Amino acid sequence: MERIPILKLGQFLLVSIQVDMHDRLALSLQDDLTDRIVQTGAHGVLIDISALDMVDSFIGRTLGNIAAMARILDADTVVVGMQPSVAITLVELGLSLPGIRTALNIEKGMDLLHASRDDQEVKEILSASGEAG
Amino acid sequence: MERIPILKLGQFLLVSIQVDMHDRLALSLQDDLTDRIVQTGAHGVLIDISALDMVDSFIGRTLGNIAAMARILDADTVVVGMQPSVAITLVELGLSLPGIRTALNIEKGMDLLHASRDDQEVKEILSASGEAG
Repeated sequence: MERIPILKLGQFLLVSIQVDMHDRLALSLQDDLTDRIVQTGAHGVLIDISALDMVDSFIGRTLGNIAAMARILDADTVVVGMQPSVAITLVELGLSLPGIRTALNIEKGMDLLHASRDDQEVKEILSASGEAG
Repeated sequence: MERIPILKLGQFLLVSIQVDMHDRLALSLQDDLTDRIVQTGAHGVLIDISALDMVDSFIGRTLGNIAAMARILDADTVVVGMQPSVAITLVELGLSLPGIRTALNIEKGMDLLHASRDDQEVKEILSASGEAG
């Protein structure tokens, strides 16, 4: 069965979507990704869509679902590499990808994940010290 | 036209091959990759083949060509994520992927690239100091 590989990069997981997503493939990606987040304790998921010439409402919803599932498992999701034409089409179709954060490329996406992680840790430390004090 | 995306990760480039490689796709990958090596000055190329259930002689030759081209452009190539069944089939077919270095996963591949880079730098420094002395 066709599967989208999930690559581990340090504390992040990287998924590069290159093929047309159909229902079954999207479901197996959701299953595999949530499994890998739990297995690896990953704190972030990067989804590269630079190979996609088109993002329709199905893919948009799938990306949203993945981001929501990852969030519950304590991992942030960033979609990277969107082509300009894809952004234009998405807005023209009225799809604004709610709940999905984006970055221009993998490196900027990693920076974003690192930054939001640091933020969260600072908040946790502050709230812990607040409780202690 | 279908293209395999090339992702930049620090000083390395990452290519995740997920689709069947035909002649034209292999050629466009070679073109794109050599362009990106020159553009970015990347010192290493990681080729992930974890999605491939089969590697035939054409793909083997393509990987070898890419590694040879990258080497001339001062970049090392490591093929990562090979499935056990692929390794078995390759050897049974008499294909030993000459000139191609492999690693189990992206992280080990990066370590290998870093290590060979450090080695090379040490040698360059030693030869330079030898010349100076």
